[in-house]
Amino acid sequence: MPKLNLHRRDYVSILGGDISADELEQMLNPHFDKPTNKLTPSPYLTDKNITRRWDKLANPALQAELLDVHTQAQSHVYEKNIEHFIGTVKIPVGLAGPLRVNGLFAKGDYLVPLATTEAALVASYNRGAQLITACGGASAMLLNEGVTRTPAFAFYNLAEAGQFVTWAVTQYDTFKQLAEATTSHGKLSDINISIEGNHVYLVFEFLTGDASGQNMVTIATNAIFNYIIDNSPIASENAYLDGNLSGDKKASSQSLRSVRGKKVTAEVHVPAELVKKYLHTTPEKMMQFTQMSTVGATLSGTIGINAHYANALAALYIACGQDAACVAESAVGMTRIEVNRDGGLYASVTLPNLMLGTVGGGTGLPSQKACLELMGLYGSGKSQALAEVCATLCLAGELSIVGAFCAGHFSRAHHKLAR
Amino acid sequence: MPKLNLHRRDYVSILGGDISADELEQMLNPHFDKPTNKLTPSPYLTDKNITRRWDKLANPALQAELLDVHTQAQSHVYEKNIEHFIGTVKIPVGLAGPLRVNGLFAKGDYLVPLATTEAALVASYNRGAQLITACGGASAMLLNEGVTRTPAFAFYNLAEAGQFVTWAVTQYDTFKQLAEATTSHGKLSDINISIEGNHVYLVFEFLTGDASGQNMVTIATNAIFNYIIDNSPIASENAYLDGNLSGDKKASSQSLRSVRGKKVTAEVHVPAELVKKYLHTTPEKMMQFTQMSTVGATLSGTIGINAHYANALAALYIACGQDAACVAESAVGMTRIEVNRDGGLYASVTLPNLMLGTVGGGTGLPSQKACLELMGLYGSGKSQALAEVCATLCLAGELSIVGAFCAGHFSRAHHKLAR
Amino acid sequence: MPKLNLHRRDYVSILGGDISADELEQMLNPHFDKPTNKLTPSPYLTDKNITRRWDKLANPALQAELLDVHTQAQSHVYEKNIEHFIGTVKIPVGLAGPLRVNGLFAKGDYLVPLATTEAALVASYNRGAQLITACGGASAMLLNEGVTRTPAFAFYNLAEAGQFVTWAVTQYDTFKQLAEATTSHGKLSDINISIEGNHVYLVFEFLTGDASGQNMVTIATNAIFNYIIDNSPIASENAYLDGNLSGDKKASSQSLRSVRGKKVTAEVHVPAELVKKYLHTTPEKMMQFTQMSTVGATLSGTIGINAHYANALAALYIACGQDAACVAESAVGMTRIEVNRDGGLYASVTLPNLMLGTVGGGTGLPSQKACLELMGLYGSGKSQALAEVCATLCLAGELSIVGAFCAGHFSRAHHKLAR
Amino acid sequence: MPKLNLHRRDYVSILGGDISADELEQMLNPHFDKPTNKLTPSPYLTDKNITRRWDKLANPALQAELLDVHTQAQSHVYEKNIEHFIGTVKIPVGLAGPLRVNGLFAKGDYLVPLATTEAALVASYNRGAQLITACGGASAMLLNEGVTRTPAFAFYNLAEAGQFVTWAVTQYDTFKQLAEATTSHGKLSDINISIEGNHVYLVFEFLTGDASGQNMVTIATNAIFNYIIDNSPIASENAYLDGNLSGDKKASSQSLRSVRGKKVTAEVHVPAELVKKYLHTTPEKMMQFTQMSTVGATLSGTIGINAHYANALAALYIACGQDAACVAESAVGMTRIEVNRDGGLYASVTLPNLMLGTVGGGTGLPSQKACLELMGLYGSGKSQALAEVCATLCLAGELSIVGAFCAGHFSRAHHKLAR
Repeated sequence: MPKLNLHRRDYVSILGGDISADELEQMLNPHFDKPTNKLTPSPYLTDKNITRRWDKLANPALQAELLDVHTQAQSHVYEKNIEHFIGTVKIPVGLAGPLRVNGLFAKGDYLVPLATTEAALVASYNRGAQLITACGGASAMLLNEGVTRTPAFAFYNLAEAGQFVTWAVTQYDTFKQLAEATTSHGKLSDINISIEGNHVYLVFEFLTGDASGQNMVTIATNAIFNYIIDNSPIASENAYLDGNLSGDKKASSQSLRSVRGKKVTAEVHVPAELVKKYLHTTPEKMMQFTQMSTVGATLSGTIGINAHYANALAALYIACGQDAACVAESAVGMTRIEVNRDGGLYASVTLPNLMLGTVGGGTGLPSQKACLELMGLYGSGKSQALAEVCATLCLAGELSIVGAFCAGHFSRAHHKLAR
Repeated sequence: MPKLNLHRRDYVSILGGDISADELEQMLNPHFDKPTNKLTPSPYLTDKNITRRWDKLANPALQAELLDVHTQAQSHVYEKNIEHFIGTVKIPVGLAGPLRVNGLFAKGDYLVPLATTEAALVASYNRGAQLITACGGASAMLLNEGVTRTPAFAFYNLAEAGQFVTWAVTQYDTFKQLAEATTSHGKLSDINISIEGNHVYLVFEFLTGDASGQNMVTIATNAIFNYIIDNSPIASENAYLDGNLSGDKKASSQSLRSVRGKKVTAEVHVPAELVKKYLHTTPEKMMQFTQMSTVGATLSGTIGINAHYANALAALYIACGQDAACVAESAVGMTRIEVNRDGGLYASVTLPNLMLGTVGGGTGLPSQKACLELMGLYGSGKSQALAEVCATLCLAGELSIVGAFCAGHFSRAHHKLAR
Repeated sequence: MPKLNLHRRDYVSILGGDISADELEQMLNPHFDKPTNKLTPSPYLTDKNITRRWDKLANPALQAELLDVHTQAQSHVYEKNIEHFIGTVKIPVGLAGPLRVNGLFAKGDYLVPLATTEAALVASYNRGAQLITACGGASAMLLNEGVTRTPAFAFYNLAEAGQFVTWAVTQYDTFKQLAEATTSHGKLSDINISIEGNHVYLVFEFLTGDASGQNMVTIATNAIFNYIIDNSPIASENAYLDGNLSGDKKASSQSLRSVRGKKVTAEVHVPAELVKKYLHTTPEKMMQFTQMSTVGATLSGTIGINAHYANALAALYIACGQDAACVAESAVGMTRIEVNRDGGLYASVTLPNLMLGTVGGGTGLPSQKACLELMGLYGSGKSQALAEVCATLCLAGELSIVGAFCAGHFSRAHHKLAR
Repeated sequence: MPKLNLHRRDYVSILGGDISADELEQMLNPHFDKPTNKLTPSPYLTDKNITRRWDKLANPALQAELLDVHTQAQSHVYEKNIEHFIGTVKIPVGLAGPLRVNGLFAKGDYLVPLATTEAALVASYNRGAQLITACGGASAMLLNEGVTRTPAFAFYNLAEAGQFVTWAVTQYDTFKQLAEATTSHGKLSDINISIEGNHVYLVFEFLTGDASGQNMVTIATNAIFNYIIDNSPIASENAYLDGNLSGDKKASSQSLRSVRGKKVTAEVHVPAELVKKYLHTTPEKMMQFTQMSTVGATLSGTIGINAHYANALAALYIACGQDAACVAESAVGMTRIEVNRDGGLYASVTLPNLMLGTVGGGTGLPSQKACLELMGLYGSGKSQALAEVCATLCLAGELSIVGAFCAGHFSRAHHKLAR
């Protein structure tokens, strides 16, 4: 039976360094001496002239890489997307595809630009894309859309919270009018109320056109919020524009049963011979692996089950001017891999939380716009197709990685391409 | 009482388009015609000559943005980080800081490069950094380190699984030797066994030096894996290099009670007058907001509680050549904001799953390396400091956004900077 | 730095016993010899005559305790609640209260019967009840009601799934009619559709009157299910009456954002002097503890945050003839404890998943009915009040246990009462 | 596209009753009038004489059911298990079995007593038990044991937290000595430290012999806790005996990767012909159902995946004098159902959080003890076998319910037996 084995969790660094109590205090506590980094007192950052910032940074070698000629010539285009601009970081872009998508909105063969610094990533998605296209393409279906903001109101007690709610539900038309006056594309599509003790959350759900829409719904909700503050017959003790119920920038289990951004499902039936040809394994093995890895993921406590959506999403989001921070929330969903009735493979992915757009945000920046245009997916009327391409790309990646684990190629691919 | 209100979930797009059953079938099902995208049959992608790829893409306007002169001149440097390279996407970088960190490893004032296309993001982190630095800096402590791979073995029954485990626990020294022969920096630091029915997961945990280490642990574990396959007295029915228990590229609840990558906590005590000066609110209001937003996040089903770690992580990871897909797993943790015993503000963040390195991956690419060097954090011996800077940056962002919600500035900032 | 410390997880028992591989196989594998328990071949269990079952069990001492005179006299009343009946287990019942509830449905002072074998439990709830009553009672509000069944349909592909859904949404009136023909009290209140790849879940939500309603919704949904099987223009490959999406008998995060059974919130404002008098601590300390224990619960990965709802629910459910297995799903929710604007304490609980009824199930059994009648809550028109009492009881327990942790009494109470 | 459909969540009851704001305030707010329940001012509850309590309750009909002759004669035996005792509630007990268990500790055929008021429950478990026994029994393996208490310490800052930890890790021997001085059976088996900002959680894990052990570990940890308070060189600002990290009485995801109470796995291989004979379906169908219901459960956000462990656990726990509130935490785990290499069925369950004992708590009460003795599992040296029986019972239930869903019998069974 076990002896006391003293898990050395959560203090490895303290003990490892044999730091005394006094040293620890000295190291960790505030010190109010002058900045040690002499190069860059903050005021200079605010200088509008980029090269003057670099004068202060005084490092021509770094400047040459970040503020290269091309970037310098275009520096004005970044003005509305960044503050304290000093240049650009260059992320290499590779193409995966053609990826055939038979969607409600995406129709055709896409060469998908992926921006990543991780070796083997493009190759893996490309392999999955080839397989899907060889199957005649994947089916993809946008299921739902909606982005929320969730203002939160704290009252003294339940009676006041209840009274507030009974008032709020009479104001729907006004809310809609106010919200939609702030935006030409956003539409208030639903309202949901959540009471928790003396707290009330109003969940406003919007359709955001072809923009990802986080700013749009913030501004629209703010108009409603201000109206509520001014007009509610019951004054709240505290009120906030968002009470952290929206799931913004966080993986959340609620998305599995609803939608945030765009919800898309994509699937493909793969004949056994194509599994063999492209993935060097069999449908049975891929199903068995998935049964086991589904359990593994469940034991680790993930939200939904997938292998590596995040790789596809990060690479596509960065290439296409999306908000890369949304990878945190988007990389949630459900992968299923089974043997179908013909002895072939059935694979599907369902992603309820794709935050993306084809207008606004970083989509208009030159290289990002170029990536969208490579797919013919820049501008109005394209976001739903982009969402379907994005889900299908995730499907390609799930097929490729599961195939690699089944064929025993996973380590080899990384060994070969990453070294 | 409620009437039947028929939530129109998950089929909005089908119904919205009034698509007939026949049309649906035609739209979604495979079609084996020739590729519709004439530009780019896949073979051309594999051409080693980048410009010949563009010849096939035949779009000089897009080429000019992705394969600009600077990128073209440096194209060889990307060879080991990407496949099917066609150019680079440029992400604007802004500086936030100086951010004073009093850590076990990070000591000093950092100008943090953030790559993002989201307006207001750098400004918000910069505000938080100013505040922290005005407080004499934040304390930061690396708590633990470790990256896992989790090979999975399926046996016929429990008896065989048990017999396998009783063998495996005698092989620890061999496992360690085999693993460490594959890497000059990686160390096998712990092994944990998880039995689920006739399935056995071996959780190998490594220290990966200053590399993020996913590839390193894959290769090291593969050496153990092959040894097991060859030497186990009990043959498994199926065996896989990873059974999806590691949490790789996924937010997982297990990380909250353990570590993946680097686990860091950071904190700051802020006097009430600095809360007022920098955030235009009070410690009490910020605590009350946090109490409410903690509940909001809990109701939404997030793993841990935070406001927007993902923004800091995505921007820092992209700027510094980290694997941006790891934002999915790293953006998990615990933010706490309270009134301290002096009536000031106490704020802390704890992130158990920072996947980052200062060698390997994308860290050596020119512009990424430049960003790390701006902070003095490129190369060997720097990853622990980078982790502490990263956590402190998250702390800065939590302070800034919570302050904005309390002062009612949140919408205004986005309105002003994002339009 | 840590040495390899070899977590001896998940095989302690095998190693602890120094079992050889052969022994392990012999111990764990099937053996087809005659039953070793000679007393009770299964056929005898099916004997309608209870005493004849005991003749076979041949253990008068045990029979005397399980089939006591009172139980024997009433044995017919259990016929529809159990199979293979051999007697009753006696759970001691203690009273907590009076508990004053100011609810939408529960109004007045309740003496709450609690069935438990855990010392200190009744005393703890009684203490909380006294405190609440001294405050003039707790407010309680039934927020929502609904019980779901979730039939699941697997199709060959997305196109068929989509075609099925477009048909199903036209059948709502028929579904409602069919469902409500099976029950005099149940009403179909909502339908929600969830598509995941080629799988479709139809989430039927019912109001179940004063019954807990699981059987009612199963039977009603079965009527719809059979209709779908017979009438859907698209045949499914597989179809099941429930696809495990309902949350039946499991804690599920979806309940936090919706309802299962009855959703109730309850709250109380406690003046500081009553906190001192009853709990021997202060509002500040209780808030601080709650801030810390909220983090603790979050790190452990619970669904929602509470201290020990399960104690109240198990004791009340057992006493009152509820389905005790539902403790698994009901013990989820959100406790909040704060300092209010008057320097007093504010505490609330919100439970979204109370599965309970005042008719049907075990509510009509003699001793269970007696417990409900003690509160005046047996029979039609009482379930909503019972739900409000139940939530308020949970509130009492949260106050008492948090008070005990803050006053340092927790261990003492258990030491004194449990030994 | 969807119109605004106004989810009427979380205020149904307020609106349904058309309650005015004034009425709402009047209904919900405190009122300090005399107790409306005239029967039972609390003081009488504390009367040691049970019949005098009933004199005040003044309801002979209810008294006859709760304080029947048998209960009255034995009332002294309940003294240490309940406060304010007024009688017993009788839960009918049925037998399921024989259930053959081939475990490390449980060996043989068990007739399992199940206490429930839910029709069809015993029948369903009995069916599963028959099937398992016909297969030569299920294999069961106790994997691990341990119960935690998690004292929590709040410091002013990280430096103090770090200093505290560096002291605490030197005190292990003392902690062990202090803890084990309070108990003859408990052993401190492991210590784990979790730092979150300026908060430190010490996770003490104990082996508790054959007792469930919650009180034992509370008292043992309290001894350590008091020592820390008295001897720590760093004073904490706040300290609590438990910081809610232990998972006590709550389903928690951390249990999936560790243990709480007893962790057991059980499995069975079922030949296809026995699947047909007992469950009227096929291994393939059962696997397909499980694949779908695993996804359903994942989408609903459960911890682990199972169908209805709670039914087995509640019925067994109540019959056998276990703490029924622990159903909330115990009903978590992983069910797997697959087609095996012989075309038969493989099924397993893994439950990491079985809180049970064969001494202490309610196990010594007459009818509860009788239930344990029916299985030969009362007293010292039996708890590990009880845990293996318990897991195997859960396995029986999973087989039976999944079989019913596949054969289309689920609704029928409830219709027939529950009406």
